[in-house]
Amino acid sequence: MPERKRQLNIAMVGSGFIARAHSNAFHQVGHFFEVPFSLCTKVVCARDQQKLQAFAQQWDWQETALEWESVVTRKDIDVVDIAVPNALHAPIALAAAKAGKIILCEKPLALTVEQAAKMAEAVRILPNLVWFNYRRVPAIALAKQWIEEGRLGQIFHYRAYYFNQSGADPAKGQTWRYRRSEAGSGAIGDLLSHLLDTARYLNADISELSAMTHTFAPNRDVDDAVLAMAHFANGSVGSFEASRFGVGRRNGNGFEIYGSKGSLAFDLEDMNRLQFFDATESTALQGTKSMLVTGPDHPYSANFWKPGHLIGYEHTFIATLGDFLEALARQKPFHPNFDDGLVTQKIIAAVEASAASGVWTRV
Amino acid sequence: MPERKRQLNIAMVGSGFIARAHSNAFHQVGHFFEVPFSLCTKVVCARDQQKLQAFAQQWDWQETALEWESVVTRKDIDVVDIAVPNALHAPIALAAAKAGKIILCEKPLALTVEQAAKMAEAVRILPNLVWFNYRRVPAIALAKQWIEEGRLGQIFHYRAYYFNQSGADPAKGQTWRYRRSEAGSGAIGDLLSHLLDTARYLNADISELSAMTHTFAPNRDVDDAVLAMAHFANGSVGSFEASRFGVGRRNGNGFEIYGSKGSLAFDLEDMNRLQFFDATESTALQGTKSMLVTGPDHPYSANFWKPGHLIGYEHTFIATLGDFLEALARQKPFHPNFDDGLVTQKIIAAVEASAASGVWTRV
Amino acid sequence: MPERKRQLNIAMVGSGFIARAHSNAFHQVGHFFEVPFSLCTKVVCARDQQKLQAFAQQWDWQETALEWESVVTRKDIDVVDIAVPNALHAPIALAAAKAGKIILCEKPLALTVEQAAKMAEAVRILPNLVWFNYRRVPAIALAKQWIEEGRLGQIFHYRAYYFNQSGADPAKGQTWRYRRSEAGSGAIGDLLSHLLDTARYLNADISELSAMTHTFAPNRDVDDAVLAMAHFANGSVGSFEASRFGVGRRNGNGFEIYGSKGSLAFDLEDMNRLQFFDATESTALQGTKSMLVTGPDHPYSANFWKPGHLIGYEHTFIATLGDFLEALARQKPFHPNFDDGLVTQKIIAAVEASAASGVWTRV
Amino acid sequence: MPERKRQLNIAMVGSGFIARAHSNAFHQVGHFFEVPFSLCTKVVCARDQQKLQAFAQQWDWQETALEWESVVTRKDIDVVDIAVPNALHAPIALAAAKAGKIILCEKPLALTVEQAAKMAEAVRILPNLVWFNYRRVPAIALAKQWIEEGRLGQIFHYRAYYFNQSGADPAKGQTWRYRRSEAGSGAIGDLLSHLLDTARYLNADISELSAMTHTFAPNRDVDDAVLAMAHFANGSVGSFEASRFGVGRRNGNGFEIYGSKGSLAFDLEDMNRLQFFDATESTALQGTKSMLVTGPDHPYSANFWKPGHLIGYEHTFIATLGDFLEALARQKPFHPNFDDGLVTQKIIAAVEASAASGVWTRV
Repeated sequence: MPERKRQLNIAMVGSGFIARAHSNAFHQVGHFFEVPFSLCTKVVCARDQQKLQAFAQQWDWQETALEWESVVTRKDIDVVDIAVPNALHAPIALAAAKAGKIILCEKPLALTVEQAAKMAEAVRILPNLVWFNYRRVPAIALAKQWIEEGRLGQIFHYRAYYFNQSGADPAKGQTWRYRRSEAGSGAIGDLLSHLLDTARYLNADISELSAMTHTFAPNRDVDDAVLAMAHFANGSVGSFEASRFGVGRRNGNGFEIYGSKGSLAFDLEDMNRLQFFDATESTALQGTKSMLVTGPDHPYSANFWKPGHLIGYEHTFIATLGDFLEALARQKPFHPNFDDGLVTQKIIAAVEASAASGVWTRV
Repeated sequence: MPERKRQLNIAMVGSGFIARAHSNAFHQVGHFFEVPFSLCTKVVCARDQQKLQAFAQQWDWQETALEWESVVTRKDIDVVDIAVPNALHAPIALAAAKAGKIILCEKPLALTVEQAAKMAEAVRILPNLVWFNYRRVPAIALAKQWIEEGRLGQIFHYRAYYFNQSGADPAKGQTWRYRRSEAGSGAIGDLLSHLLDTARYLNADISELSAMTHTFAPNRDVDDAVLAMAHFANGSVGSFEASRFGVGRRNGNGFEIYGSKGSLAFDLEDMNRLQFFDATESTALQGTKSMLVTGPDHPYSANFWKPGHLIGYEHTFIATLGDFLEALARQKPFHPNFDDGLVTQKIIAAVEASAASGVWTRV
Repeated sequence: MPERKRQLNIAMVGSGFIARAHSNAFHQVGHFFEVPFSLCTKVVCARDQQKLQAFAQQWDWQETALEWESVVTRKDIDVVDIAVPNALHAPIALAAAKAGKIILCEKPLALTVEQAAKMAEAVRILPNLVWFNYRRVPAIALAKQWIEEGRLGQIFHYRAYYFNQSGADPAKGQTWRYRRSEAGSGAIGDLLSHLLDTARYLNADISELSAMTHTFAPNRDVDDAVLAMAHFANGSVGSFEASRFGVGRRNGNGFEIYGSKGSLAFDLEDMNRLQFFDATESTALQGTKSMLVTGPDHPYSANFWKPGHLIGYEHTFIATLGDFLEALARQKPFHPNFDDGLVTQKIIAAVEASAASGVWTRV
Repeated sequence: MPERKRQLNIAMVGSGFIARAHSNAFHQVGHFFEVPFSLCTKVVCARDQQKLQAFAQQWDWQETALEWESVVTRKDIDVVDIAVPNALHAPIALAAAKAGKIILCEKPLALTVEQAAKMAEAVRILPNLVWFNYRRVPAIALAKQWIEEGRLGQIFHYRAYYFNQSGADPAKGQTWRYRRSEAGSGAIGDLLSHLLDTARYLNADISELSAMTHTFAPNRDVDDAVLAMAHFANGSVGSFEASRFGVGRRNGNGFEIYGSKGSLAFDLEDMNRLQFFDATESTALQGTKSMLVTGPDHPYSANFWKPGHLIGYEHTFIATLGDFLEALARQKPFHPNFDDGLVTQKIIAAVEASAASGVWTRV
């Protein structure tokens, strides 16, 4: 008979799109990972009563609450999950930290480096996570593994891009993501922050950068697009480009990495694949290999279906949570955490500073 | 306050790979579809006690049973789901039908036309489904919609293929799928049956065919590969090729359709996309369009995530179940059902007859 | 000082599209190959005086003639190149053979096996070539090399297709290619013959086949589409499909080959690439490699430009001619020659016989 | 009888790779274009006597010369073609201009803006061309046409890249292209200059930019890589990245353009195709169209073969020359000419200045 697992009661703040993805992960993680805890979707908080009820029912949350303040301090709550606009990350996380909760927070961590630093400090002894979910795309995890094994040799170029067309859509332009007060920035926090976390994960820290931002839409107080050139600590050179005016791209988040022994490329719209060029092969045999990263022997391939059976967007959240819970059980460090979120926040600050000054900025 | 939904208690027979996919669908359908029932994963049946316990725990089945006979007749069971080797489909389905259950059955429906005919007859007044899940790949559902709208004009060619490399893998060659007594056939039932169901769905009935089978592996009593040429009732010409010796393909299930106004192509290893060539455009503008079928305005795109956010293998089962439950609630016909399974069984029989005789065979 | 090369005076019969490709090859071969002859484009023959003049001027032919009979026997002519409708291949080739000429003939070699056999017999001691130019696509030549090296292991499946949309184009439907008296057949001679020559080159002889043909257009006395299933002498299984009703494909001539150690795929619309899956790699590293076959170390890559610099359709004729002239100088055998053309003609006859009878036919 | 064409005697300086491409264009242009001149490959100049002889023989040059000074002023020479290292462009062009010749010059035009300005001034009344051959890739010419027609609407993003791996190849690192004295720069002149010319052609003038360069190889006095961010005069934002350390890319020269009505993408390693996303279509129908730009109704498709029959690298030179000669005959302006080369030289100077200073620089 299996030993009784410790139950973790979860309070989630938020009921939007990303809250759906989190809810799904809470329900699904046990189906695909050996989870050493029993998760309980206890209470979900949001402001719109009617929408909240429907959400709670659809996603099996036991209770609802219209304000988060009293919830995150409840004794019966173990985990606070923050799935709300960026401006609320800090207050909720700080309150939850004060109450000693396990904290999961959407990206980007905060509006400012100051906020992020306080948050990282506050959770110093608490288990914590930032939902930079793309580290757990199997293809990206495989890229990480191969880079660490030296399959690319010395990295020369790291190129990252994130294009969608949300900014050109008048309907989307009215949401919180297009208001500085709630989002802090535009494409920077929304899209570039993902690229920065992945770049740190796969390549190295950024030491210096030069950036520009541009706003195409009139009367909008956030950036629609951001470009940056960078030097990495490992001597490689980087380029970053993120835009909400990439008409024709829905979720075009990708990278190309060129090294002395080969190259890798990835695009989220084809997320089950990784492109690999192995320059150590004899020249007649060289080519760009399109790898279906569904196993055997690929990251997370034992968790999900079987080789050739694709996974989707939601699985990146499930895998993130699965790894987090395993680290939690083993009392091991987990990444990306609030410290990682803080580093990304510092790069974001450097991007904004450089875009404002027009000069190179150290991170 | 929402009205209380009718609860459906499910008994599933099987605990293998496909039983995982079914279990997942039972748990997930309510998260993505407006389900007019409350589903309860009541009891799972399988022969291996230890494996069964682990399975039941991982997939939240309330009870386990080592034999299906007494389970499928239980009063408290509403739905019987058959997820076992082909040879068991008929006995379980017939028993469940006698007990008046809603019946869901894995494909292919049966070992023989005789079995399939009996099964179809037995469920005449019962809600029933065959898990030809690929009809609900959004890209395939979109293809169906466009063909019905006449976007391809008169169909000339229907080409279908299904290649994987399972047959060349010694480990897999020992499973039930490689024994005639349990599987009925090899690539025919395993792979070709999917192609036939999709062909009927997208194109038309097959009127006549010529087929060949081949077994590459020694000492194997099922076909490793099957090829067929066909005439469809709508005047189009078809080719089918399915093999377990398609080394390099993991789940290479696809089609190409050429019509007077354009063409479509699909491959399951890139299942979120549909290729479309519109020959009604001016020539300078013509090209093969790769469409990311994740919305807006695509089949099932409102159910799952949002445009640009991919779905995976499991969602085809969720969508199949979602549609079935909706049809059930509205007392509307659902396809593919046992009658569809019977038609496919007849085509399979024609394929086997033609392969044996070497002549064209009417279906 | 370079030694004086022997001059070869060429007479070409034909002034259509393919005659352009041949003329280009005669002028270009010396720029890309070490040609041990000096080629002289002496005389071009065609029936339409005005068109012929323009053609001769554009492609630098010294003389023109309205009928071929007297030209192919001229003493000063060394090479007769046949670039006219299929029905004329035999009479011209036989006349040229009688006159002891070097003979180059467009594909398919003839209208019938009888014709082809006579032609092959007539050129027994003469240098001769059939313009199955696709053997010299660098990617196909590389495939040949690798298959011979055993990189695919035992071949299981050979799949070939050739789709274009010419048949659906009313304008094209009026040309000689759509009349049995001049073309002998439709898609069979035009498209399938290429597939058959390549299949023999890459894989093995065909021992037995079952075929069907179909004519979509009313009032057309040739096949618009042909399908065949085959057994090869090496134990592999084959499928062939060629159609002039492949709307959306312009020149979709390709193959997939699956073997025990890997697979290859090619498509003429992407002719500088070869797809390779190496199943001997460790599973985590496996994937389909897209190889740009422009060198270094690829067939013909030293002849043309440099790695990454593509070649086009015309280069297949140049390379065919380059290899032929080298073989001629060294008095070595060249393929594909009239004997190869005869074998293909026999397979075509088997295809037609099987399509008529509906039964399997030995080649 | 056709009227006698004016003969143009050509003197070419250079016998390297690019001189082959030019020689080929001189011989081939008449086969594919209605050329109103008779071209004579009169004399080729280079320093290495032995190599020169072989070159002249292979490419049918009537005479050879070891120094260019006396050749470019010869009375019987009409056209001077400059196909030598960058440092020699200015002296040869100025001498040829003084002698009143028609001048064709390889890119980049010069080593410095000063040189380029003098050259542009010197050829003010002479027909002249800079071999930015990629404007005549049919797919790029089609992109130009569509952008002018407004198919992309307002341009938001212009992204350009050029990656090859030449810099990582020790053998190539010893050639003149890796020495500042002869090449002027590294990836900037070699690769970026192409991107800049294409960007001006397709999009708009660059008003301001910020750039960085990097040299990975030790002891090399030119840049191995260059990155730039830019503002275009039309309000769009640009990114440029060129590197000789793009391991795995042979000739990876491409662009993506995002506009309010759609997007375009191109890559030279797939040069017969253009990718087009039409955002004016209804959402369900949107997708990225891969267009085979081989006709009908595409730029240059009437000149070369027929739809579906690919062209290669060399055809861009043939088409450039064809257009130039037609403009020459009609006394119409031709682009890209020395004035275009001068503008690109100014952007290059701005790139170098910005890379040195670290600040934004106006062009």
